Amino acid sequence: MFDITPLANRNEESIQARINQKTKPPGSLGKLETIALQLAKILGSQSIQINQPTMLVFAGDHGIAEEGVSIAPSEVTGQMVVNFLNGGAAINCFCQTNNMKIEIIDAGILSAVDDSRLTIQPLGKGTKNFAKSAAMSEQAVNEGLRLGANVVYQHTNRGTNVFGFGEMGIGNTSSAAALMASLLNFDVAECVGHGTGISDLQFVKKLSLIEAAISLHGRFSEEPKKALAAYGGFEIVQMVGAMLAAAERQSVLIIDGFISTVAALVAVKLNPDVRDYMIFAHQSAESGHVKLLEYLKAEPLLSLDLRLGEGTGAALALNLIQSAAGFYNDMASFESAGVSAV
Amino acid sequence: MFDITPLANRNEESIQARINQKTKPPGSLGKLETIALQLAKILGSQSIQINQPTMLVFAGDHGIAEEGVSIAPSEVTGQMVVNFLNGGAAINCFCQTNNMKIEIIDAGILSAVDDSRLTIQPLGKGTKNFAKSAAMSEQAVNEGLRLGANVVYQHTNRGTNVFGFGEMGIGNTSSAAALMASLLNFDVAECVGHGTGISDLQFVKKLSLIEAAISLHGRFSEEPKKALAAYGGFEIVQMVGAMLAAAERQSVLIIDGFISTVAALVAVKLNPDVRDYMIFAHQSAESGHVKLLEYLKAEPLLSLDLRLGEGTGAALALNLIQSAAGFYNDMASFESAGVSAV
Repeated sequence: MFDITPLANRNEESIQARINQKTKPPGSLGKLETIALQLAKILGSQSIQINQPTMLVFAGDHGIAEEGVSIAPSEVTGQMVVNFLNGGAAINCFCQTNNMKIEIIDAGILSAVDDSRLTIQPLGKGTKNFAKSAAMSEQAVNEGLRLGANVVYQHTNRGTNVFGFGEMGIGNTSSAAALMASLLNFDVAECVGHGTGISDLQFVKKLSLIEAAISLHGRFSEEPKKALAAYGGFEIVQMVGAMLAAAERQSVLIIDGFISTVAALVAVKLNPDVRDYMIFAHQSAESGHVKLLEYLKAEPLLSLDLRLGEGTGAALALNLIQSAAGFYNDMASFESAGVSAV
Repeated sequence: MFDITPLANRNEESIQARINQKTKPPGSLGKLETIALQLAKILGSQSIQINQPTMLVFAGDHGIAEEGVSIAPSEVTGQMVVNFLNGGAAINCFCQTNNMKIEIIDAGILSAVDDSRLTIQPLGKGTKNFAKSAAMSEQAVNEGLRLGANVVYQHTNRGTNVFGFGEMGIGNTSSAAALMASLLNFDVAECVGHGTGISDLQFVKKLSLIEAAISLHGRFSEEPKKALAAYGGFEIVQMVGAMLAAAERQSVLIIDGFISTVAALVAVKLNPDVRDYMIFAHQSAESGHVKLLEYLKAEPLLSLDLRLGEGTGAALALNLIQSAAGFYNDMASFESAGVSAV
């Protein structure tokens, strides 16, 4: 359903040769050289032009939250959406510091927020409790993928070519852990963490709830849409659609922490070519994240012990991406600078 | 010789209380919370205002380079100084991306560069080969500390309150490793690495040369100026003076990779209060760096496999520091945003 151009070795030799001619020992800019190579493949090997980088924050509520597996009640999702709109959250501050545009999307929160600054396209008033029944219908999944993609197209049509993906949704680490276990056939215990900071008691409850849900609905390693229907969140579904659309439009995808990486996993399961467009921003403190990144062969740029979500890691990684583009575009070669090659 | 105000617990309780009232689970911004606390102690707990962040790149040549322990000959130091002045090096690109001012200082390179954009204050035409004799006189050490400090005062007088410290000097990882071994009583093998990329054969030579030099000059764990005279580089000495002066003027010090961290170690040995003002930017690929950071109780912000020096890690960390200031200054509290506290 998304037509993504695989990047494979596109201009790889000439890009790498250009990087190696820069006035520095080969490889001495470490991970930034890898990022520069990827950026040049996606955005052009002559010059990497980053336009209007934009953070998309998808918000949705989760039926599973009624089980008390989070540090906060579901009403905090809506309260934080208002906070995002008013510019008061961490993600707002980081986008401000980094000149990143931000858009907040109501993908399906419990209490409607009536505000013209909010993109309102809910798939419902929170998902169903996946401990008891499927979180949503497959029709909702398809609709969510389409709505998420539409958000991206609005921006790519105006020139944006770099997107960050953030989320807000009380209960969504439970949804993400279940999706991960279901899609990768991992033990649930390998996928569940303490979220933004639940107690050990809540952790045990979360673990057994998700294990029971996996027994109830099953695993869907080759059927990502079925996994989304069983365990997904509305914000996760729309994020998956947005990621696939952004890759289709040959944009750079900055993947944030655990939830955002699970959405990336689902996107990769739907169309593996999307992987070439992804930059992983942050090693989350959430325990399942390490294994997930291993599966995706991803080495995140940052490791700052963040456990907040919202897209915060992605916003903080933007500057490193811009710095990689900067050295690729502007750094002198040994020849042009008259420096003896090393 | 430098009058540095210890920060200790300055306003710590009120600063921490303000951080904890932000609309996020406590501690969920990880290392950025630690940075915000430190910034608020240094620059003010009401509002953290970062002014004209400036990168100081000190360049100097090393007599030890004649032993062939580097990937490049000494002439590359001067060539790279010209490249810095023309804006073509990695550090220029990263300062450009990060709106950081840059000043290049000739602290003692072999071939004079006649350019009005260069701050020319050499302590000599390269140090002596410390495998054979002391690198410089103690008089040169004192003069270098004074000259390095002067560079900083020029900027603090015009309002700069954040400094990055970078360096260029073929052979300077040998000098830094010897300083580290001498000051911390470590085995030389724990302090020596592959620099920007020498061969195994060069590595063995570098190791035995430094071991022999330590036998020749001795260890100076309580006499940092004697260590500088025996093993130092002109750029390292001036960097030490600049760091102490920056702390004296209550500025933030962004410490780069291995060489810059060794200079930080010397500064701490001269006046332990300087440590409170230091933010460590980057975990270098140079093997001694881990142990050095442990000694300084430092957790760097970034780990990007950089091994270039020039201040590149420090320039890349600036954005994270600005982001920490941003959330401290602008993020809403639970009360102001009407979000249920977690």
